[in-house]
Amino acid sequence: MNAEEAMRLAIGQGDQVKGGTYPNPPVGAVILDRDGDIAGVGGTQPVGGPHAEVIALRRAGERARGGTAVVTLEPCNHHGRTPPCVDALVAAGLASVVYAVKDPNPVAAQGAARLAAAGVEVRSGILADEVAGGALREWLHKQRTGKPHVTWKFATSVDGRSAAADGSSQWITSEAARADVHRKRAVVDAIVVGTGTVFMDDPALTARLPDGSLADRQPLRVVVGMREISSDARVLNDDSRTMVIRTRDPLEVIAAMSDRVDVLVEGGPTLAGAFLRAGVVDRIVAYVAPILLGGPITAVDDVGVLSIAHAQRWRFDGMDRIGPDVRLSLVPNDNR
Amino acid sequence: MNAEEAMRLAIGQGDQVKGGTYPNPPVGAVILDRDGDIAGVGGTQPVGGPHAEVIALRRAGERARGGTAVVTLEPCNHHGRTPPCVDALVAAGLASVVYAVKDPNPVAAQGAARLAAAGVEVRSGILADEVAGGALREWLHKQRTGKPHVTWKFATSVDGRSAAADGSSQWITSEAARADVHRKRAVVDAIVVGTGTVFMDDPALTARLPDGSLADRQPLRVVVGMREISSDARVLNDDSRTMVIRTRDPLEVIAAMSDRVDVLVEGGPTLAGAFLRAGVVDRIVAYVAPILLGGPITAVDDVGVLSIAHAQRWRFDGMDRIGPDVRLSLVPNDNR
Ligand SMILES: NC(=O)c1ccc[n+]([C@@H]2O[C@H](COP(=O)([O-])OP(=O)(O)OC[C@H]3O[C@@H](n4cnc5c(N)ncnc54)[C@H](OP(=O)(O)O)[C@@H]3O)[C@@H](O)[C@H]2O)c1
Ligand SMILES: NC(=O)c1ccc[n+]([C@@H]2O[C@H](COP(=O)([O-])OP(=O)(O)OC[C@H]3O[C@@H](n4cnc5c(N)ncnc54)[C@H](OP(=O)(O)O)[C@@H]3O)[C@@H](O)[C@H]2O)c1
Repeated sequence: MNAEEAMRLAIGQGDQVKGGTYPNPPVGAVILDRDGDIAGVGGTQPVGGPHAEVIALRRAGERARGGTAVVTLEPCNHHGRTPPCVDALVAAGLASVVYAVKDPNPVAAQGAARLAAAGVEVRSGILADEVAGGALREWLHKQRTGKPHVTWKFATSVDGRSAAADGSSQWITSEAARADVHRKRAVVDAIVVGTGTVFMDDPALTARLPDGSLADRQPLRVVVGMREISSDARVLNDDSRTMVIRTRDPLEVIAAMSDRVDVLVEGGPTLAGAFLRAGVVDRIVAYVAPILLGGPITAVDDVGVLSIAHAQRWRFDGMDRIGPDVRLSLVPNDNR
Repeated sequence: MNAEEAMRLAIGQGDQVKGGTYPNPPVGAVILDRDGDIAGVGGTQPVGGPHAEVIALRRAGERARGGTAVVTLEPCNHHGRTPPCVDALVAAGLASVVYAVKDPNPVAAQGAARLAAAGVEVRSGILADEVAGGALREWLHKQRTGKPHVTWKFATSVDGRSAAADGSSQWITSEAARADVHRKRAVVDAIVVGTGTVFMDDPALTARLPDGSLADRQPLRVVVGMREISSDARVLNDDSRTMVIRTRDPLEVIAAMSDRVDVLVEGGPTLAGAFLRAGVVDRIVAYVAPILLGGPITAVDDVGVLSIAHAQRWRFDGMDRIGPDVRLSLVPNDNR
């Protein structure tokens, strides 16, 4: 197996642990033995547990000696709750280490330099864009900006409606698309809506499995707006914690979630518009259903654009079939 | 080369001649010799010229003997302006004929039966869905229903807008997407807009090459509505012919184009809505740009749907990146 194939496997390991590693990054690692055969794989465990490299090394055992470690993120070089991964890699006698993305965190970084100093061959940048746009995206964003990564998700008909003319919207998208949203909810740190959505839809905003039962991990629920919501609202039930933020300022909402990494905005058009106008959305995920609705109700009304010359410009970074629907993913055009 | 690979090649031949074969179908053919090597390929020539099978047979020459003909449509069995293809296939001494789609035209059909009677092994159905949804779709529709196949094309931002709040819409989609539309215009038989689009945009509605020059083939331009358009309107220039239909009834428009096969509706929201409500749209093609616009202007306003339960249900049959944009293609959910 070559380094790129191994990196794909490592990416898969990172994807699997995503959502469970906070505040650590969801890293994936693969150990190849001298012959290039897989000796061990691993993903970062929940906080206090071992990092991806250590899990993979344990599984590889003696086969790691003279082999290659393939890791999605530059191995860490600091004593946190666990010893530095570079020490474990050097001790295991690896001949080389390949990683995708450099660690932007100055405290943990310099792992590559330490490895090189210990005589380990180091290569970086393999599938870097894929990793940086994938499982590590939100964590990298947090490291670089100090702010949570915000994804705005919406469901729409192919003619751009988020409800029919009479307001009915259950369901625009398929069961498959809704299951995809619930999987996403189970890995984010918070879900944000405006009071309008609570009043209109009374959603529980929990992550549920296809059988309706609760997923293991539940995001914090965040309700934004000045109006008081009823204590009977489902969003206040015991299935997860809820934060009510009495503001209409998206920057205040972001500040109140500064300890979070991965935030999902599922609000209605008012909240979505406010976040988009404030420029605090880092990814858009649109679930597009193969239906036509017409009428006045769209997913967002005002994004602060008057003429085509001032359109908000994004870039598609994903396009997938989800059951009968299409999921489009966009990131800002400036690569921020 | 196996039959499926050869059929893919034949599909490519059919795609190449699409738009130039009216009223004949754009068929593609491949002749494999006894060893399964390609001996000849061909696509149907303009009316009066040879059909795909005959072109491919000519190129194959003696190598056709004992070989296999792979054709997208059941070979024809009638004397039109050219002799029946089945005669040419039998005369060439082919051992077998493979086709994708049965000819629904009772006059031309029975080609398979004639071939079998002449001792040629016949197989059908290979990549049939792909062919029936591809180059032959419009022609098959015309054969089955007697009516032209209607494609509604629109350009939209990812939030479902066809113009910014101030009405500006040049350009929502990229140069690559617009070039794709011009390629499509060059293969259709007619382009339809409402008088509203003529008054607002004054489009020429011609098929142009990337350098701005006119494509070889120009569709008929059709303007629909009761208002008189100015004799200076670009749509009336000499670059192609133009039909002005004084009606607001989509069925009348369809009837006026009953000799056409492949019709493209590029009208504004009023015309698009009328066609969609009348149920005369057979395919939707949406060019989705990675931009946000907000505001009140959408590609269609009223599709005759009041609540989600009565949504017009379609099915995605294509999803492609066109430069920075995404092209989504939909067909009716009932496979009509
Ligand atoms: N298709 C989808 O993906 C989707 C997703 C969610 C909701 N929806 C639909 O959206 C509808 C609700 O729409 P909505 O717009 O009322 O919901 P919303 O955006 O969730 O909530 C609107 C409320 O948010 C508060 N708010 C927060 N920031 C604000 C700001 N900067 N400016 C103004 N208000 C701000 C205001 O509450 P206060 O007045 O209390 O301050 C406002 O009334 C429902 O019908 C729901 O079904 C659709
Ligand atoms: N984004 C895109 O893909 C796209 C494509 C084309 C146009 N546009 C935009 O659309 C805007 C023009 O919108 P529009 O709706 O006025 O254009 P339109 O739909 O092309 O033309 C509307 C006119 O069509 C006639 N008409 C035909 N059938 C009708 C029916 N059943 N009911 C009512 N009227 C019917 C009426 O003309 P009479 O009054 O003469 O009877 C009506 O005023 C322009 O700004 C243009 O830029 C966008």
